[in-house]
Amino acid sequence: MTEIRELRTDEPVHATAPRTGDAFGETLLAALASGPAPAAVSEVIERDDGLIVASDAHRYFRTPEAWQEPIRWAVAQARGRVLDVGVGAGRHALAAAAAGCEVTGLDVSEGAVEVSRRRGVRAVRGAGEHADRLFGPGSFDTVFLLGQNLALLASPERAGDLLGVLRAVTAPGASILGDSQDPASGSARNEAYFARNRDRGRPPGQFVLRARYLDLATPWFDYWYCSPHELEAVAAPHGWRLEDARRAGTTYSVRLRRV
Amino acid sequence: MTEIRELRTDEPVHATAPRTGDAFGETLLAALASGPAPAAVSEVIERDDGLIVASDAHRYFRTPEAWQEPIRWAVAQARGRVLDVGVGAGRHALAAAAAGCEVTGLDVSEGAVEVSRRRGVRAVRGAGEHADRLFGPGSFDTVFLLGQNLALLASPERAGDLLGVLRAVTAPGASILGDSQDPASGSARNEAYFARNRDRGRPPGQFVLRARYLDLATPWFDYWYCSPHELEAVAAPHGWRLEDARRAGTTYSVRLRRV
Repeated sequence: MTEIRELRTDEPVHATAPRTGDAFGETLLAALASGPAPAAVSEVIERDDGLIVASDAHRYFRTPEAWQEPIRWAVAQARGRVLDVGVGAGRHALAAAAAGCEVTGLDVSEGAVEVSRRRGVRAVRGAGEHADRLFGPGSFDTVFLLGQNLALLASPERAGDLLGVLRAVTAPGASILGDSQDPASGSARNEAYFARNRDRGRPPGQFVLRARYLDLATPWFDYWYCSPHELEAVAAPHGWRLEDARRAGTTYSVRLRRV
Repeated sequence: MTEIRELRTDEPVHATAPRTGDAFGETLLAALASGPAPAAVSEVIERDDGLIVASDAHRYFRTPEAWQEPIRWAVAQARGRVLDVGVGAGRHALAAAAAGCEVTGLDVSEGAVEVSRRRGVRAVRGAGEHADRLFGPGSFDTVFLLGQNLALLASPERAGDLLGVLRAVTAPGASILGDSQDPASGSARNEAYFARNRDRGRPPGQFVLRARYLDLATPWFDYWYCSPHELEAVAAPHGWRLEDARRAGTTYSVRLRRV
C-alpha cells in the first residue's frame, strides 16, 4: 500500500488561546446585524472534553410560532413583573411584554444587554445570582429561566445561590418558568461525558462550557442540565416547589412556585 | 457600582484536546446526511491564533448557478482527463463530468472520498503531493485546485512539491485551474495575523488551520492564501505559467499552463 502523507505543517504549532471576552454577546450582535437572518451567524459552544458544536444563532431571535410547545406553555404563564434571567436577544421577554407583562431582562453579557435593548427590552447587565444587588425584595411576580437557562443553576452546590436570590427578589406566590434538556435523554457521545462526571462525583449533566466567536472566548462556566427530579430536589430547600412540567422530546419546561 | 460576578466554574478547568481525526470528512458526511440541506451542518475551522470560524457546510454541495463567476469560469475550461485535488464533496468534479470530462477526485479525507463517491465521483484517497504514487506520467489534461485549494500549496517552500508532482502526472499542454483569496484584501482581523507572519519570515497569507467537528480535530495544517503575484513566482520554476485570471471581490481564479 502507498503511504499517504496527510496535510501537515512544517513546524510544531504553538496555538494561541483565544482572547477572553464576550463571545456570546458578539455572536448575538453579529446575528442582529445580519438582519437577523437565518443561517447567517453560528453560535459556537465548546465543552471541556474537546467537543465543539456550532448552531444557527438565529434561534435567539425566533418568534413564538417557531418555539417548541413546552416553551410556549411556559411563556404563556408569565404574570405581572417579569425578571428574564439570561435574557439573550430578548425573544421570551418580547413575547411576555406583548402579552402585557412588565419585563426586565438580565444578562452577564454586555452584548446580550445591548441586543435586547435595541429590540425594545428593558435590560440590565448582571448575573442572576446577584439580582438582589439590583432589585429590592418582592420586585417580581415571575422569573424566566428559559432558553435552557435552568442550566444556569450551575451545580447542585451552587443552585441554592441563584434560587435563594430569586426568592428574595420575588413576591409571595411568584413562579419560576424555566426549561432545560433532560440528561437522561443524552446521546452516546454524552454518555462518556456523563460517566466522567459520575467518576468526579458530579451529576451527569453538569457541563463545563465556553462560547467562542472569532478570536474571543468566554471564561469556562458550569451549565447544569438537571433532570426534573434533580431540579425538584435542589429547589425545595430554597422555597420553590415544582408544580407543573411539560415535555417535548429531550426538552422540558417547568413551573416552580414560591412557597 | 455593583460588582457583578460572571458565569464561572468552581474548579480550575483542565480542558481536554479534541481527538485527532477526519473532522472535515465527518462534517461532509453529516452535511450529506442532512439532505444535503442548507444551514443544517456547520464547518468549523480554527486558526492557530485562537480564531474560530463556523460556516454553512452546505456550500460544498452547491451547484454552479450558486458559484461566484470566477469559479464557473475556471470549471468551464476543464478539458479531457481531470484530476480534482481536494475533491471535497465533489461539486466541481460533478460539473466537469457533466460537461464531458473524465474526472478523478483525490482527497486526504476518508470522509470526503466517501461523500464524493456516493455522489457519483470516481475518487481515491491521497494527498496531491503524492499523486505520482497513484497515477502515471501524463495521466491528466486538467488539474483542479478549486474551492480555495490553491492554498494547498501550503507555503513558498513546499509549493514546489505539489506543483512538481502535478507536472509529472499531467500531459503536455495541461492546465491547472484553481482559486484562492487574495490576502491583500484581508480584514483588520487578518492584518494582525499577517503582521505576525511577516515577523516570522512567512508570507502574510500562510494560515495554520485545523478543522473541528464535534469531538474531532484534524492535525494542524498549512494553508497558504497566496496572491496571484506570489503564485506566479512559485509556479514558474516548476514549469507552470500563469496564463489568465479572473477576480470577484476577494476571490480570484487562475489558469496555469504546463510549459
